[in-house]
Amino acid sequence: MFMKERLDEFYEMLKIDRKKSPWSRENSFESRFEELRKEIEEVGVALKNDDMKNFEEEIGDCLWDLLFLIVIAEEKGLFTGRDVVEGSIAKLKRRKPWIFEGEAVKSVEEEIELWNRAKRELEGRGGI
Amino acid sequence: MFMKERLDEFYEMLKIDRKKSPWSRENSFESRFEELRKEIEEVGVALKNDDMKNFEEEIGDCLWDLLFLIVIAEEKGLFTGRDVVEGSIAKLKRRKPWIFEGEAVKSVEEEIELWNRAKRELEGRGGI
Repeated sequence: MFMKERLDEFYEMLKIDRKKSPWSRENSFESRFEELRKEIEEVGVALKNDDMKNFEEEIGDCLWDLLFLIVIAEEKGLFTGRDVVEGSIAKLKRRKPWIFEGEAVKSVEEEIELWNRAKRELEGRGGI
Repeated sequence: MFMKERLDEFYEMLKIDRKKSPWSRENSFESRFEELRKEIEEVGVALKNDDMKNFEEEIGDCLWDLLFLIVIAEEKGLFTGRDVVEGSIAKLKRRKPWIFEGEAVKSVEEEIELWNRAKRELEGRGGI
Protein backbone atom coordinates (compact mmCIF):
# COMPACT_ATOMS: atom_id res chain seq x y z
CA MET A 1 0.00 0.00 0.00
CA PHE A 2 0.87 3.55 -0.65
CA MET A 3 0.56 6.26 1.99
CA LYS A 4 -1.98 4.57 4.21
CA GLU A 5 -2.01 5.79 7.79
CA ARG A 6 1.11 7.93 7.32
CA LEU A 7 -0.91 10.42 5.30
CA ASP A 8 -3.58 10.49 7.99
CA GLU A 9 -0.86 10.94 10.59
CA PHE A 10 0.56 13.87 8.66
CA TYR A 11 -2.89 15.43 8.31
CA GLU A 12 -3.51 15.07 12.06
CA MET A 13 -0.15 16.77 12.71
CA LEU A 14 -1.15 19.66 10.49
CA LYS A 15 -4.38 20.01 12.46
CA ILE A 16 -2.39 20.15 15.71
CA ASP A 17 -0.05 22.68 14.16
CA ARG A 18 -3.00 24.79 13.05
CA LYS A 19 -4.40 24.65 16.59
CA LYS A 20 -1.24 25.31 18.59
CA SER A 21 0.85 27.53 16.36
CA PRO A 22 0.04 31.26 16.34
CA TRP A 23 1.95 31.48 13.06
CA SER A 24 -0.15 28.76 11.43
CA ARG A 25 -3.31 30.29 12.83
CA GLU A 26 -2.46 33.46 10.93
CA ASN A 27 -2.64 31.51 7.65
CA SER A 28 -5.57 32.18 5.38
CA PHE A 29 -6.54 30.44 2.14
CA GLU A 30 -4.90 33.34 0.32
CA SER A 31 -1.60 33.39 2.24
CA ARG A 32 -1.22 29.63 2.11
CA PHE A 33 -2.07 29.55 -1.55
CA GLU A 34 0.83 31.96 -2.17
CA GLU A 35 3.13 29.56 -0.29
CA LEU A 36 1.88 26.69 -2.43
CA ARG A 37 2.65 28.66 -5.58
CA LYS A 38 6.23 29.24 -4.40
CA GLU A 39 6.64 25.55 -3.60
CA ILE A 40 5.41 24.58 -7.06
CA GLU A 41 8.10 26.77 -8.58
CA GLU A 42 10.67 24.97 -6.42
CA VAL A 43 9.45 21.64 -7.81
CA GLY A 44 10.14 23.09 -11.26
CA VAL A 45 13.65 24.20 -10.26
CA ALA A 46 14.48 20.74 -8.83
CA LEU A 47 13.23 19.16 -12.05
CA LYS A 48 15.29 21.51 -14.21
CA ASN A 49 18.39 20.72 -12.14
CA ASP A 50 17.59 17.00 -12.31
CA ASP A 51 17.95 16.96 -8.50
CA MET A 52 15.66 14.05 -7.64
CA LYS A 53 16.29 14.21 -3.89
CA ASN A 54 15.17 17.82 -3.87
CA PHE A 55 12.31 17.01 -6.28
CA GLU A 56 11.00 14.49 -3.74
CA GLU A 57 11.26 17.02 -0.92
CA GLU A 58 9.55 19.80 -2.87
CA ILE A 59 6.68 17.48 -3.83
CA GLY A 60 6.31 16.85 -0.08
CA ASP A 61 6.22 20.59 0.57
CA CYS A 62 3.46 21.03 -2.02
CA LEU A 63 1.49 18.21 -0.45
CA TRP A 64 1.95 19.94 2.92
CA ASP A 65 0.49 23.23 1.62
CA LEU A 66 -2.30 21.47 -0.25
CA LEU A 67 -3.31 19.55 2.89
CA PHE A 68 -3.08 22.72 4.94
CA LEU A 69 -5.61 24.37 2.63
CA ILE A 70 -7.89 21.40 3.33
CA VAL A 71 -7.32 21.80 7.10
CA ILE A 72 -8.57 25.41 6.81
CA ALA A 73 -11.52 24.30 4.65
CA GLU A 74 -12.46 21.64 7.18
CA GLU A 75 -12.25 24.19 9.99
CA LYS A 76 -14.64 26.44 8.09
CA GLY A 77 -17.00 23.50 7.55
CA LEU A 78 -16.59 23.70 3.77
CA PHE A 79 -15.20 20.27 2.86
CA THR A 80 -12.86 17.55 4.10
CA GLY A 81 -9.90 15.71 2.62
CA ARG A 82 -12.12 12.73 2.10
CA ASP A 83 -14.54 14.86 0.06
CA VAL A 84 -11.67 16.06 -2.12
CA VAL A 85 -10.32 12.56 -2.77
CA GLU A 86 -13.76 11.05 -3.37
CA GLY A 87 -14.50 13.89 -5.80
CA SER A 88 -11.30 13.12 -7.70
CA ILE A 89 -12.02 9.39 -7.81
CA ALA A 90 -15.50 10.03 -9.22
CA LYS A 91 -14.12 12.51 -11.74
CA LEU A 92 -11.42 10.13 -12.97
CA LYS A 93 -13.99 7.34 -13.40
CA ARG A 94 -16.40 9.59 -15.28
CA ARG A 95 -13.74 11.15 -17.45
CA LYS A 96 -11.94 7.94 -18.41
CA PRO A 97 -14.55 5.17 -18.35
CA TRP A 98 -12.61 3.27 -21.05
CA ILE A 99 -9.76 2.76 -18.58
CA PHE A 100 -11.84 1.58 -15.64
CA GLU A 101 -14.49 -0.38 -17.51
CA GLY A 102 -12.02 -2.52 -19.35
CA GLU A 103 -12.27 -1.14 -22.88
CA ALA A 104 -9.09 -0.92 -24.93
CA VAL A 105 -7.90 2.21 -26.69
CA LYS A 106 -5.36 2.04 -29.45
CA SER A 107 -3.93 5.52 -29.64
CA VAL A 108 -3.48 8.82 -27.85
CA GLU A 109 -5.63 10.49 -30.52
CA GLU A 110 -8.52 8.09 -29.95
CA GLU A 111 -8.19 8.64 -26.20
CA ILE A 112 -8.22 12.43 -26.39
CA GLU A 113 -11.35 12.19 -28.57
CA LEU A 114 -13.02 9.95 -25.94
CA TRP A 115 -11.94 12.30 -23.13
CA ASN A 116 -13.39 15.35 -24.89
CA ARG A 117 -16.61 13.49 -25.65
CA ALA A 118 -16.98 12.40 -21.99
CA LYS A 119 -16.25 15.96 -20.87
CA ARG A 120 -18.83 17.44 -23.26
CA GLU A 121 -21.49 14.93 -22.27
CA LEU A 122 -20.88 15.47 -18.56
CA GLU A 123 -20.84 19.24 -18.92
CA GLY A 124 -24.12 19.01 -20.82
CA ARG A 125 -25.60 17.32 -17.77
CA GLY A 126 -24.03 19.83 -15.41
CA GLY A 127 -21.53 17.26 -14.18
CA ILE A 128 -17.77 17.38 -14.27
CA MET B 1 -10.03 9.64 9.96
CA PHE B 2 -9.14 11.69 6.96
CA MET B 3 -8.48 10.15 3.55
CA LYS B 4 -7.56 6.66 4.67
CA GLU B 5 -7.99 3.99 2.05
CA ARG B 6 -9.67 6.36 -0.41
CA LEU B 7 -6.34 8.04 -1.09
CA ASP B 8 -4.73 4.65 -1.64
CA GLU B 9 -7.61 3.70 -3.90
CA PHE B 10 -7.10 6.88 -5.92
CA TYR B 11 -3.36 6.22 -6.17
CA GLU B 12 -3.99 2.67 -7.38
CA MET B 13 -6.37 4.03 -10.02
CA LEU B 14 -3.69 6.43 -11.22
CA LYS B 15 -1.28 3.52 -11.54
CA ILE B 16 -3.84 1.61 -13.64
CA ASP B 17 -4.38 4.73 -15.74
CA ARG B 18 -0.64 5.09 -16.25
CA LYS B 19 -0.45 1.46 -17.34
CA LYS B 20 -3.45 1.29 -19.66
CA SER B 21 -3.73 4.76 -21.12
CA PRO B 22 -1.44 5.63 -24.06
CA TRP B 23 -2.14 9.29 -23.30
CA SER B 24 -1.02 8.92 -19.68
CA ARG B 25 1.99 6.89 -20.74
CA GLU B 26 3.10 9.88 -22.83
CA ASN B 27 3.32 11.97 -19.64
CA SER B 28 6.77 12.89 -18.39
CA PHE B 29 7.75 14.68 -15.20
CA GLU B 30 8.04 17.83 -17.29
CA SER B 31 4.69 17.61 -19.09
CA ARG B 32 2.83 16.67 -15.94
CA PHE B 33 4.50 19.43 -13.99
CA GLU B 34 3.17 21.93 -16.56
CA GLU B 35 -0.33 20.52 -15.97
CA LEU B 36 0.13 20.93 -12.23
CA ARG B 37 1.13 24.55 -12.70
CA LYS B 38 -2.05 25.23 -14.69
CA GLU B 39 -4.17 23.55 -12.02
CA ILE B 40 -2.56 25.68 -9.31
CA GLU B 41 -3.57 28.79 -11.22
CA GLU B 42 -7.13 27.45 -11.35
CA VAL B 43 -7.09 27.06 -7.56
CA GLY B 44 -6.15 30.75 -7.43
CA VAL B 45 -9.00 31.72 -9.77
CA ALA B 46 -11.54 29.75 -7.69
CA LEU B 47 -10.25 31.47 -4.57
CA LYS B 48 -10.47 34.91 -6.14
CA ASN B 49 -14.05 34.20 -7.23
CA ASP B 50 -14.85 32.82 -3.78
CA ASP B 51 -16.22 29.73 -5.55
CA MET B 52 -15.69 27.12 -2.85
CA LYS B 53 -17.20 24.24 -4.84
CA ASN B 54 -14.71 24.90 -7.61
CA PHE B 55 -11.92 25.50 -5.07
CA GLU B 56 -12.53 21.99 -3.71
CA GLU B 57 -12.46 20.50 -7.21
CA GLU B 58 -9.28 22.32 -8.24
CA ILE B 59 -7.50 21.21 -5.06
CA GLY B 60 -8.45 17.67 -6.09
CA ASP B 61 -7.00 18.26 -9.56
CA CYS B 62 -3.71 19.45 -8.03
CA LEU B 63 -3.60 16.39 -5.80
CA TRP B 64 -4.21 14.27 -8.90
CA ASP B 65 -1.21 15.79 -10.73
CA LEU B 66 0.98 15.65 -7.64
CA LEU B 67 0.20 11.95 -7.15
CA PHE B 68 0.77 11.31 -10.82
CA LEU B 69 4.29 12.74 -10.51
CA ILE B 70 4.82 10.25 -7.67
CA VAL B 71 3.48 7.41 -9.86
CA ILE B 72 6.15 8.26 -12.46
CA ALA B 73 8.84 8.52 -9.75
CA GLU B 74 7.85 5.13 -8.35
CA GLU B 75 7.96 3.64 -11.85
CA LYS B 76 11.50 4.97 -12.27
CA GLY B 77 12.46 3.50 -8.88
CA LEU B 78 13.20 6.96 -7.46
CA PHE B 79 10.82 7.24 -4.51
CA THR B 80 7.31 6.29 -3.38
CA GLY B 81 4.39 8.22 -1.95
CA ARG B 82 5.20 6.79 1.42
CA ASP B 83 8.75 8.19 1.18
CA VAL B 84 7.34 11.62 0.36
CA VAL B 85 4.89 11.63 3.26
CA GLU B 86 7.40 10.23 5.74
CA GLY B 87 9.88 12.88 4.64
CA SER B 88 7.31 15.60 5.27
CA ILE B 89 6.39 14.21 8.69
CA ALA B 90 10.06 14.15 9.71
CA LYS B 91 10.57 17.67 8.38
CA LEU B 92 7.57 19.08 10.22
CA LYS B 93 8.75 17.50 13.49
CA ARG B 94 12.28 18.81 13.07
CA ARG B 95 11.21 22.27 12.00
CA LYS B 96 8.57 22.80 14.67
CA PRO B 97 9.64 20.80 17.73
CA TRP B 98 7.89 23.29 20.01
CA ILE B 99 4.54 22.22 18.56
CA PHE B 100 5.07 18.47 18.80
CA GLU B 101 7.01 18.33 22.03
CA GLY B 102 4.48 20.25 24.01
CA GLU B 103 6.23 23.57 24.51
CA ALA B 104 4.13 26.73 24.37
CA VAL B 105 4.89 29.71 22.18
CA LYS B 106 3.38 33.08 22.89
CA SER B 107 3.61 34.93 19.62
CA VAL B 108 4.12 34.65 15.90
CA GLU B 109 7.42 36.56 16.26
CA GLU B 110 8.77 34.09 18.82
CA GLU B 111 7.72 31.24 16.59
CA ILE B 112 9.38 32.59 13.44
CA GLU B 113 12.56 33.06 15.48
CA LEU B 114 12.37 29.41 16.65
CA TRP B 115 11.66 28.22 13.10
CA ASN B 116 14.66 30.08 11.71
CA ARG B 117 16.88 28.78 14.51
CA ALA B 118 15.78 25.17 13.87
CA LYS B 119 16.33 25.66 10.15
CA ARG B 120 19.83 27.10 10.67
CA GLU B 121 20.81 24.34 13.06
CA LEU B 122 19.51 21.62 10.77
CA GLU B 123 21.15 23.15 7.72
CA GLY B 124 24.42 23.33 9.65
CA ARG B 125 24.18 19.57 10.09
CA GLY B 126 23.23 19.06 6.44
CA GLY B 127 19.66 18.25 7.42
CA ILE B 128 16.46 19.91 6.32
